[in-house]
Amino acid sequence: MIFHSDNETGVSPEILEAINAVGAGSAMPYGEDERSRELDRAYSDLFETEVRVYPVVTGTAANALALSTLVPPYGGIYCFDEAHIQVDEAGAPELYSGGAKLLPLPGEQGKLTASALESIFGSQRNDVHFVRPSALSLTQATELGTVYRPGEVAALSELARRHGLGVHMDGTRFANSVAFLDCSPADLTWRSGVDVLCFGATKNGAMAAEAVVFFDPSRADGFDYRRKRGGHLLSKGRFLAAQLLAYLEEDRWLRYARHSNAMARRIADIITQLRGVELTYLVEANLVFVEMETAIRRRLEERGYRLNFWPREEDRCLVRLVAPFNCQDADLEKLRSDLEACTGNDGY
Amino acid sequence: MIFHSDNETGVSPEILEAINAVGAGSAMPYGEDERSRELDRAYSDLFETEVRVYPVVTGTAANALALSTLVPPYGGIYCFDEAHIQVDEAGAPELYSGGAKLLPLPGEQGKLTASALESIFGSQRNDVHFVRPSALSLTQATELGTVYRPGEVAALSELARRHGLGVHMDGTRFANSVAFLDCSPADLTWRSGVDVLCFGATKNGAMAAEAVVFFDPSRADGFDYRRKRGGHLLSKGRFLAAQLLAYLEEDRWLRYARHSNAMARRIADIITQLRGVELTYLVEANLVFVEMETAIRRRLEERGYRLNFWPREEDRCLVRLVAPFNCQDADLEKLRSDLEACTGNDGY
Amino acid sequence: MIFHSDNETGVSPEILEAINAVGAGSAMPYGEDERSRELDRAYSDLFETEVRVYPVVTGTAANALALSTLVPPYGGIYCFDEAHIQVDEAGAPELYSGGAKLLPLPGEQGKLTASALESIFGSQRNDVHFVRPSALSLTQATELGTVYRPGEVAALSELARRHGLGVHMDGTRFANSVAFLDCSPADLTWRSGVDVLCFGATKNGAMAAEAVVFFDPSRADGFDYRRKRGGHLLSKGRFLAAQLLAYLEEDRWLRYARHSNAMARRIADIITQLRGVELTYLVEANLVFVEMETAIRRRLEERGYRLNFWPREEDRCLVRLVAPFNCQDADLEKLRSDLEACTGNDGY
Amino acid sequence: MIFHSDNETGVSPEILEAINAVGAGSAMPYGEDERSRELDRAYSDLFETEVRVYPVVTGTAANALALSTLVPPYGGIYCFDEAHIQVDEAGAPELYSGGAKLLPLPGEQGKLTASALESIFGSQRNDVHFVRPSALSLTQATELGTVYRPGEVAALSELARRHGLGVHMDGTRFANSVAFLDCSPADLTWRSGVDVLCFGATKNGAMAAEAVVFFDPSRADGFDYRRKRGGHLLSKGRFLAAQLLAYLEEDRWLRYARHSNAMARRIADIITQLRGVELTYLVEANLVFVEMETAIRRRLEERGYRLNFWPREEDRCLVRLVAPFNCQDADLEKLRSDLEACTGNDGY
Repeated sequence: MIFHSDNETGVSPEILEAINAVGAGSAMPYGEDERSRELDRAYSDLFETEVRVYPVVTGTAANALALSTLVPPYGGIYCFDEAHIQVDEAGAPELYSGGAKLLPLPGEQGKLTASALESIFGSQRNDVHFVRPSALSLTQATELGTVYRPGEVAALSELARRHGLGVHMDGTRFANSVAFLDCSPADLTWRSGVDVLCFGATKNGAMAAEAVVFFDPSRADGFDYRRKRGGHLLSKGRFLAAQLLAYLEEDRWLRYARHSNAMARRIADIITQLRGVELTYLVEANLVFVEMETAIRRRLEERGYRLNFWPREEDRCLVRLVAPFNCQDADLEKLRSDLEACTGNDGY
Repeated sequence: MIFHSDNETGVSPEILEAINAVGAGSAMPYGEDERSRELDRAYSDLFETEVRVYPVVTGTAANALALSTLVPPYGGIYCFDEAHIQVDEAGAPELYSGGAKLLPLPGEQGKLTASALESIFGSQRNDVHFVRPSALSLTQATELGTVYRPGEVAALSELARRHGLGVHMDGTRFANSVAFLDCSPADLTWRSGVDVLCFGATKNGAMAAEAVVFFDPSRADGFDYRRKRGGHLLSKGRFLAAQLLAYLEEDRWLRYARHSNAMARRIADIITQLRGVELTYLVEANLVFVEMETAIRRRLEERGYRLNFWPREEDRCLVRLVAPFNCQDADLEKLRSDLEACTGNDGY
Repeated sequence: MIFHSDNETGVSPEILEAINAVGAGSAMPYGEDERSRELDRAYSDLFETEVRVYPVVTGTAANALALSTLVPPYGGIYCFDEAHIQVDEAGAPELYSGGAKLLPLPGEQGKLTASALESIFGSQRNDVHFVRPSALSLTQATELGTVYRPGEVAALSELARRHGLGVHMDGTRFANSVAFLDCSPADLTWRSGVDVLCFGATKNGAMAAEAVVFFDPSRADGFDYRRKRGGHLLSKGRFLAAQLLAYLEEDRWLRYARHSNAMARRIADIITQLRGVELTYLVEANLVFVEMETAIRRRLEERGYRLNFWPREEDRCLVRLVAPFNCQDADLEKLRSDLEACTGNDGY
Repeated sequence: MIFHSDNETGVSPEILEAINAVGAGSAMPYGEDERSRELDRAYSDLFETEVRVYPVVTGTAANALALSTLVPPYGGIYCFDEAHIQVDEAGAPELYSGGAKLLPLPGEQGKLTASALESIFGSQRNDVHFVRPSALSLTQATELGTVYRPGEVAALSELARRHGLGVHMDGTRFANSVAFLDCSPADLTWRSGVDVLCFGATKNGAMAAEAVVFFDPSRADGFDYRRKRGGHLLSKGRFLAAQLLAYLEEDRWLRYARHSNAMARRIADIITQLRGVELTYLVEANLVFVEMETAIRRRLEERGYRLNFWPREEDRCLVRLVAPFNCQDADLEKLRSDLEACTGNDGY
């Protein structure tokens, strides 16, 4: 099951320990406890600017709540046409924004391009019969496992800003992006024009914790009301804060992501060496997309693999393999030998 | 701080252990794991009928999502005028229902009465210029610490049903009600006409776990979509399920509630013995409301008590004391002596 | 039927003529026609300041759309507890605001008072568990037929503004207020702190036309989108504009209102002279509220009157009589003799 | 201006007369007047089955309100990717449905095809991470001026029904479809599986009147509340009813549509005879789409034509010409000679 989704992994020992450390004692409720109060400072340090941080339990809540601060109910949100907010959140952005419209665009390797966006803005309607484009949403790392460079983010944000749009970053795998680029979190976000970041932790070792990070505190006005009325203000907030603080301490967020990226890289190397399976996208984060015959996929499933896949023509399919933060060498070795067996590469 | 709110307590050792037990391993995400799959059975056993159970992390989410299945956007929800859904959820029922209207009613000792409801129905408008009354919401135990008897619930539900309304029970302190009445959970809910119950655990020893329980599975149609688009479907759902299962095992939910009820009873006895402080409502669950001079409240605060209170006339106020599930004898003794000192009852 | 509601009257001959005048010809659609383009200027002249005007077909649409520009989804709207927006719009403000909460307050003679509002602000919560109070809504003339003086509006607005609230005026009978006070429309609105006025015409001689008037054009940003997505941007907008322009021309709006006010005053005089019927509120606009025995009301109904009424204790009721813009002397004479007959005042 | 849009025409003399006929008198408000009460019968006769009819003032309101009865907030609506509800209603369906998602599909000549829909259903997700497909919306006549045959509607509806979807028909130009097909309105709607029809009149001679027609009265439950809270229940409802009744009387709706269809046919014939301009879609209703060089379009604009157009490659564009219900021979002759001049076809 290990390569199916980074949602299936457990909690990292360090984060679990942090949860246990606040387990029994009493504390002020609703984010007024000591640990919750540390969040703004800890994340301001990380991002080298004064930020406001709001923890929630899911990426869907983080994205939808964050977008609702950028977009009026009559607004539109540009995003990649396979973006999580468009195809995997059951209309959460629509709920929280009061009915805004997602405006999906094609991408290259999962990334929106400045030239495509520019041409969209060129032909964009601005009459009241259409919605008013109000936000640009970028996923970092993308749903296809690729990573926007700081310059790409800056170019897209600059275009967005020029047309009056706010910029949202779905950073469910933000750690993997920073690990890949080896850049500063600031360069990849507010210095490149991002207004609000959903900083993911759940897929990278936390139990259930995502941080909505506002780089301009004035943008956060009213966000606490929005979170509360979504049912996302936890009474025992210290359990969320404990996860998000432990995640930052000792650079765990980066260390976990570096590990899963490296493991994904090794999976990609395995794929490259095998006939019958083929990489489809650049492997920059912890996702590996592999095209193969349906028969191969079936053989893998018979060996116990649970796989996310999308049908392709001629009885082929696209399979997504995910390297989790706690992926072990043994897991990789088993994957290699299973792949060899299922592709018929083991006979020589 | 101990008597301020049952939201300030930590997690019970047994529930924390259950969380740790699922901590490191992998599991299917989004509620398809083994423990999540046990929930329906466990709660069906408890309620002696086939139920559908959906875990969420807050009572606000539970209430608002549950109500959204009973009420159209143009509907109205009758509730007590100090109900949590009316005054403490920042408009969550409005968000999730798409703009339904809460119709607050006065109560007696925090409880709606059949005669009051009957008279409301008698004069209720049913023209399209007003909203269409569609649900009745009862809080059990009430916000004032009192408990509806099964007969009271049945009478109110019967009235509601006759007028086409569904019945919702906000059971954030449901355990305390069952502990007080020593009745079966079934008698207090579906056998008395309740359609959907929000079964609280967070205030009674869990970390963050509430169960939305549908007594008629067909009522639950679409609820999984509603939960997901609210951002309340946790990817690592086993951590929620583990809490809710451990909470039921060995009747912990009842044992914790019996303890906090008993401690509240003892607080009430202390109050009764002191001049200058007075009980205002019946003490049936774990809440004790005490009227006192503002000066007394101030003295308590100087001794470190954090208190929820409401101003009354003539420099008096109403103070709420809450007995948590892990309240100790020593806490009570300290409270007694502090109260004696602050009320001037210690001089003799 | 004539005294039942000012919604039952037809269209004034002058306004019907204006409709016919634009009846057959072609014109640019969606408010880009010549007449629609005149609206801003005509209403700016009337209000002695630069305004933005948006026509819609109902008062409910006008109010709900106007409020949606003042209040976030997590906001609260203070209003009189019998305000039209609270009890007669089926949740329209909730729909258009995305779920904001109405916060009804008691009034005196249908009017909110500065002292009551001040005390509310004094005890108002500003935590995220409650909604954030964001607007004050005043009805002018009130639902009970009384009229706020400019000083009263100014005092309430000043209080609202000091607490961060915007001010909305439901002016479905605004003309009757100005007619009663004989003051300038500017004094009664923006000079007294009103941000947005719903200027009614339908009840005062139009077919279906209300104007949403923004006194600060920057407040109107996005309103055209809101109107369109509510389905309230008429393709043949000239028919709305024609009504609203004809209504202003030759001071028709004021002349109609002066007439209906005068007729209401004469109804009040009739009531005063009769035993068994009693005025309950000051008669300042075109509404007359009369308390009487239920038996009297029944006798009136037998004579063909259709009456709005509210039950009172001891078999009595409160009846609302409305003087329409086209009320005739003969109508009044008939009412007088019917009232005399039904109250037994005709025998002497 | 005449060929720009059927929204620019005035009101037909017969409908204007009907408005005048109810102009001055009194009548019960809010759809309780005599004429409003006739609507159900008149439309039931037309459709040969018992229907419920609700008048509103715009097509956007009609569509969005109708769809809100078929789709839950977490639902999806399949439609043509250039459907009016998708690109020209500023998010009205999202507002009224509480945030449902439009799922645009490609079409052929503006029509969805059963085979395309079948393949969509084949690969359609039915997990809670996506929205739940709940309705199919067909525009009749389509936005491109083509007309679904009864068999096509039946095949699409049958597919929709089999997958649990309701069927909505945007009939802003329904009259033109019936005129073209010369079939019964029943065959084209409920006998072919349509649940709710928005029967347009505004574009075909009315002032502002569209009828939402439910073929199964039980589907209409709550619709009156929805209409009221959208601000679409007119107080002087007789003015809407008068238009919709006069529209049906003496088959005016059909006669107007037959005329505009015929005029469009003649425009198409003109186009066919000219070099340099080319028909792009079948001309079945009153819309004619013409591809031409941008320079030709500019020349037409210089002659006073206001044109809807979409850029095409190589300095060409697609121009939409609309034949209104009151198009005159002289208009056509002028168009012919202007087109000849602008295309250089006049020299021979």
